[in-house]
Amino acid sequence: MKKLLSVAALSAVAAASPLMADEGMWQPNQLPQIEDQLKEAGLKIDPSSLTKLTEFPMGAVISLGGCTASFLSPKGLVATNHHCAYGSIQFNSTAENNLLEKGFLAKDFSQELAAAPGSRVYVTTEVTNVTDTINDGLNEDMSGMDRYKFVEKKEKSLVSDCEAEEGYRCNVYSFHGGLEYYLIKQMEIRDVRLVYAPSSHIGKYGGDVDNWMWPRHTGDFAFYRAYVGKDGKPADFSKDNVPYEPEHFLKVNADGVAKGDFVMVTGYPGRTNRYRTSAEVENQFEWRYPTFRGILHKYIDIIEENAPEGSDARVKYASTLAGLNNAEKNWGSMIKSYAKGDLLERRQQLEADLEAWLLDNPGMKEKHGDAVAELDALVKADLKDQAVELKKWGMSRDTLSGTAAQLYRLAIETQKPDAEREPGYQERDITRIKEGLKRMNRRWDAEVEKALYKHFVAEYAKLPAEDRIKSYDQYMGISKTFDAEAFNAKVDKMFEETELTDQDVRLNWVGKSVEAFKKSDDPFIQLAVATYDENHKKELEDKEQSGKFKKLRPQYMAAIIDYYKSQDKAVYADANSTLRVTYGNVKGYSPKDGMFATPFTTLEGLAAKHTGEEPFNSPAKQLELTKSKQYGEYKDDALNSVQVNYLTTVDTTGGNSGSPTMNANAEFVGLLFDGVYESIIGDWDYNPNLNRSIHVSSAYMLWVMEHVDGASNLIKEMKIVR
Amino acid sequence: MKKLLSVAALSAVAAASPLMADEGMWQPNQLPQIEDQLKEAGLKIDPSSLTKLTEFPMGAVISLGGCTASFLSPKGLVATNHHCAYGSIQFNSTAENNLLEKGFLAKDFSQELAAAPGSRVYVTTEVTNVTDTINDGLNEDMSGMDRYKFVEKKEKSLVSDCEAEEGYRCNVYSFHGGLEYYLIKQMEIRDVRLVYAPSSHIGKYGGDVDNWMWPRHTGDFAFYRAYVGKDGKPADFSKDNVPYEPEHFLKVNADGVAKGDFVMVTGYPGRTNRYRTSAEVENQFEWRYPTFRGILHKYIDIIEENAPEGSDARVKYASTLAGLNNAEKNWGSMIKSYAKGDLLERRQQLEADLEAWLLDNPGMKEKHGDAVAELDALVKADLKDQAVELKKWGMSRDTLSGTAAQLYRLAIETQKPDAEREPGYQERDITRIKEGLKRMNRRWDAEVEKALYKHFVAEYAKLPAEDRIKSYDQYMGISKTFDAEAFNAKVDKMFEETELTDQDVRLNWVGKSVEAFKKSDDPFIQLAVATYDENHKKELEDKEQSGKFKKLRPQYMAAIIDYYKSQDKAVYADANSTLRVTYGNVKGYSPKDGMFATPFTTLEGLAAKHTGEEPFNSPAKQLELTKSKQYGEYKDDALNSVQVNYLTTVDTTGGNSGSPTMNANAEFVGLLFDGVYESIIGDWDYNPNLNRSIHVSSAYMLWVMEHVDGASNLIKEMKIVR
Repeated sequence: MKKLLSVAALSAVAAASPLMADEGMWQPNQLPQIEDQLKEAGLKIDPSSLTKLTEFPMGAVISLGGCTASFLSPKGLVATNHHCAYGSIQFNSTAENNLLEKGFLAKDFSQELAAAPGSRVYVTTEVTNVTDTINDGLNEDMSGMDRYKFVEKKEKSLVSDCEAEEGYRCNVYSFHGGLEYYLIKQMEIRDVRLVYAPSSHIGKYGGDVDNWMWPRHTGDFAFYRAYVGKDGKPADFSKDNVPYEPEHFLKVNADGVAKGDFVMVTGYPGRTNRYRTSAEVENQFEWRYPTFRGILHKYIDIIEENAPEGSDARVKYASTLAGLNNAEKNWGSMIKSYAKGDLLERRQQLEADLEAWLLDNPGMKEKHGDAVAELDALVKADLKDQAVELKKWGMSRDTLSGTAAQLYRLAIETQKPDAEREPGYQERDITRIKEGLKRMNRRWDAEVEKALYKHFVAEYAKLPAEDRIKSYDQYMGISKTFDAEAFNAKVDKMFEETELTDQDVRLNWVGKSVEAFKKSDDPFIQLAVATYDENHKKELEDKEQSGKFKKLRPQYMAAIIDYYKSQDKAVYADANSTLRVTYGNVKGYSPKDGMFATPFTTLEGLAAKHTGEEPFNSPAKQLELTKSKQYGEYKDDALNSVQVNYLTTVDTTGGNSGSPTMNANAEFVGLLFDGVYESIIGDWDYNPNLNRSIHVSSAYMLWVMEHVDGASNLIKEMKIVR
Repeated sequence: MKKLLSVAALSAVAAASPLMADEGMWQPNQLPQIEDQLKEAGLKIDPSSLTKLTEFPMGAVISLGGCTASFLSPKGLVATNHHCAYGSIQFNSTAENNLLEKGFLAKDFSQELAAAPGSRVYVTTEVTNVTDTINDGLNEDMSGMDRYKFVEKKEKSLVSDCEAEEGYRCNVYSFHGGLEYYLIKQMEIRDVRLVYAPSSHIGKYGGDVDNWMWPRHTGDFAFYRAYVGKDGKPADFSKDNVPYEPEHFLKVNADGVAKGDFVMVTGYPGRTNRYRTSAEVENQFEWRYPTFRGILHKYIDIIEENAPEGSDARVKYASTLAGLNNAEKNWGSMIKSYAKGDLLERRQQLEADLEAWLLDNPGMKEKHGDAVAELDALVKADLKDQAVELKKWGMSRDTLSGTAAQLYRLAIETQKPDAEREPGYQERDITRIKEGLKRMNRRWDAEVEKALYKHFVAEYAKLPAEDRIKSYDQYMGISKTFDAEAFNAKVDKMFEETELTDQDVRLNWVGKSVEAFKKSDDPFIQLAVATYDENHKKELEDKEQSGKFKKLRPQYMAAIIDYYKSQDKAVYADANSTLRVTYGNVKGYSPKDGMFATPFTTLEGLAAKHTGEEPFNSPAKQLELTKSKQYGEYKDDALNSVQVNYLTTVDTTGGNSGSPTMNANAEFVGLLFDGVYESIIGDWDYNPNLNRSIHVSSAYMLWVMEHVDGASNLIKEMKIVR
């Protein structure tokens, strides 16, 4: 096992090709491997400069946790997407002073507003390969559970040591399913302020209608500023704090890009599944997405029915509904793309080719053994219970049940020394847990939640008794035949009696003893206590399974990597929320026969979409400037207008939102903010003909700033190049 | 006046430019005027050959009355659109043998089926300028009515003389609103047979969803054959008839077209309004289309409500609904295009420029006088009553009222010598009148008609009494305040008592005397008799108005033509169902910012649209051939597939359906069958950036014939070139 996990498998192969042109979310340290391709694509700076995280340009790229951003001035000015700063704009809005509606511009530092609670800027400062440390002591014969615990313990220890330095947040990330582990250290800036956001009529123009769509005309950008204590170290919000002065920031190119230009995007893509087995692909697209999508439809229906348009409840669920509809569109696109394409056939072919190659190369066969077949068997075993698990999903998503279970688990974990606790329940997690407990009321309505709960438990109750949770059934009074009326009455009573709907009560449970929970007469706390043992047993079984994956997935990936290496192809790891670099070109695509998406949109196209009604309600000033062709210094001669959004071939996914788009000289030329509809399946399969990312052009950003919003103070602060 | 109407205004100006590249529906005799442009666009044959209607290639282009077609073999094989032959395919279908579903192929002449009753092939043999004849005797001082009658009498006399030769149909067409008149003589072939039609799953693929849309994948083609008597002259259907042997037919190019290729389309475009005044444009787009569209919505609602889906009535109204929805989409597109564009501003500018030019050119000012201002005043006067007229529209559209009025009018007209009768009620019209009386039952349901009638008369009754039809109100018992209940009871009783719902009864009224009508107790006949005088008075007033237009419109057009002539621009007349030639190139367009419609679709795109449900239900055989890339000899290397449909810049409108599309050598390269959504406003305004016609490629036609339907007998009959 040890040998299989050797980092040698990924050692730099000079001039290896990527799997496919423009495909790949590369770890910065891999870039020298694809140096020739980067240069051929048009990169002008030295690729090896991109491997140094604290130097230019990588030092200017930061994470907001879930989104990416970049420094655009020596005074800590941060550019990201409007949708990434949305919560902070909303947080600072009131009915009388709606910043989402009007936009916001701080004319000087003193006018900058504290961002929403929990807002952070993370600056990655160190990435250390800790594979050997994690693996030291692992052996082939460990049970899944032992392996799981062993790795978890090593990770916690590494994180704990790393976080000893104040102001830093550390995490261990596994790559290739556990073939490699990296410890990533990030400075955590806690004083983040809102500097500038255009009106949502610019920043969210097109709204959900245009989400994932081209042609696009969204000014999806906003500016934060990072503040630190006078000592230059991260500090809580204070008037005395000073702007953070990053060592590096990006120059802003006022011309945006031209057709064919080289571009690269650095950022924190969340999750992809490019190396899943054919069995996993088939299951996901032919069972899981279609089945879960059906459940989503019901979920959406119940909310819409119980929170009618115009009601207060609907306001509370607006964001939930947006998320559900987003998932619905997302899965719909993936199902459609899968049906049209040959993803499954190609994965099956890859596995057949890999097997044939192993048979032809006895050395490799000996090294990798039956990794492919063993992983396949584990995958299939793992999928056996999924229908049952999905039936339980609706029940487990209930907020009150979940909150009670989380609070009780916290009490149980707190009995242990910090280092031995379940991740997520350590001292370092308490602040986040509390922030979550505070958020609940804003997005919760009893009538909606009861309706959802009743529906989904009724579905769960259709499972045979042996698949159900006995302690749950007992507490809720569910017997062999489900008595919906009695059950619903029970639920109504629980919702009436529980005090967990009160924020103070919830927060008050943090830190209480296990005994206190056991004595509580709150029905949801009682339910959490009653079902804990049985649920925990299931959790341990899942960890045993997970431990098995931690053994087999790396073996499989090692074989895959050797196979591609034999073809001189470099392999990037699936996205895992760590810093990656992807490159490509400005380029259109054909979404369907007889139609070609050209790579730019313009102010005139934006104006043509304007209806005066949401989500196409452009500010009048923008329309007037467009009508009178006041392009200022931002005119693109080829377009005879100002470029608004553009398409590129870069390989991105959720988490990349807000990533700086850089040109061949690593100048800032815009922000990545979305992908086209046909690229949604990109999380599973990169298609060079259809995978396109959508960016807002730096030219449009500056045009809006200068001509629409008068943000000249910020333009002066930046270094503009042409 | 005489001078103004001189044909000199249109005399050939060597090398005059058309108004705009590719714009123009040219009369064949005008083509030498634009010879240079035609050659520059790529025409290789001599433009003057196109002026000779009985020579190649014009001799091969024919009219079906409402659609265009062409001869593709020496044995009278006629190619047209599937939607032009739809009625004949439907006519020959039964529930057990549904040719729409299965398609139809006659393997030899004997299997060919009689087309639907009334099907005709018209071969234009002579076009004579009769302007001088019509104008001889006209004078400036005539009243509108006198002018109207004078022109009508001249026209009837010309037609009557022309039709003295048996087997011919003649009509006088006015051009430029009456600036020129042409007598057009057409051989009328009455024995037309259905030879071949692919399945509707090919011929109507995409159905109403794709109507007016790109990308398009419709195999909109079918084949007729013209038959004549053994003497070579038109004859009624008979087994003894023989295939008509045209002097000319088109060779078929099996490769279709390539991007940028020159194409020309010859055909019979129905009606355009390219020279309407700014007042007419403003009224049409800002009042008439939006108002009438609102009425259409109500019309559609009432039908859908009273003929629920799945009912027999719905089947009867399928075609009516399709037409209404078509108009709804059409007007919707025009309203949208008008709002986005600057049509009105440009028309106003043209009028201002024209006035300025007249002032600068005293000779022209003297020649044209106040034509512009006078027409403008007449237009505005004419529009005054339109709101009242529109309220009456719904009432007048009622089938039973209309039928009774038509029959009574026929009796009145029949009292006069044939030459003096109202056009449409002469002996030459009797056959058509009877065919119309037979068609009624297929598209009529009492409940639907009653609901429509009740709704629209209630709307009419909202008019002030002085705007209403007194004799109608009296007969129907409508007094100052409309008593809906009493009125509805009256309508129910009339529908119950009338015998006009019986086809034999209707036909039996043809030829009856005025007295017989007056004595009839059929309520709809009684209504027709009661309202005749008042309606006829209104008709005479309309004719007076029409006569005034016949004076002023030509004056205005003469000024316009002289104005353009001063700029070396040739002027084509608005479409009027006469033979025209338009040319252009194979070219895509940008329907919106960030999107470009490429000029070809392919078999793969067709397959990608297939859902298995109407209207996207491709025959399995076509899908299999596509999947296995069996392109045969029809592969387009640039597309790596077979071209299915393509876009060109030719200037066409309704009536052009089925027109042969010819390449630079006048070879057949496909059939025009539609325009794109953005070109619908083309009836008022040609926009070179958006006006695109849609064609089915000859390559796809032959591929379907050879590989899907096995129509090798027809391919053999044609002259295929590559």
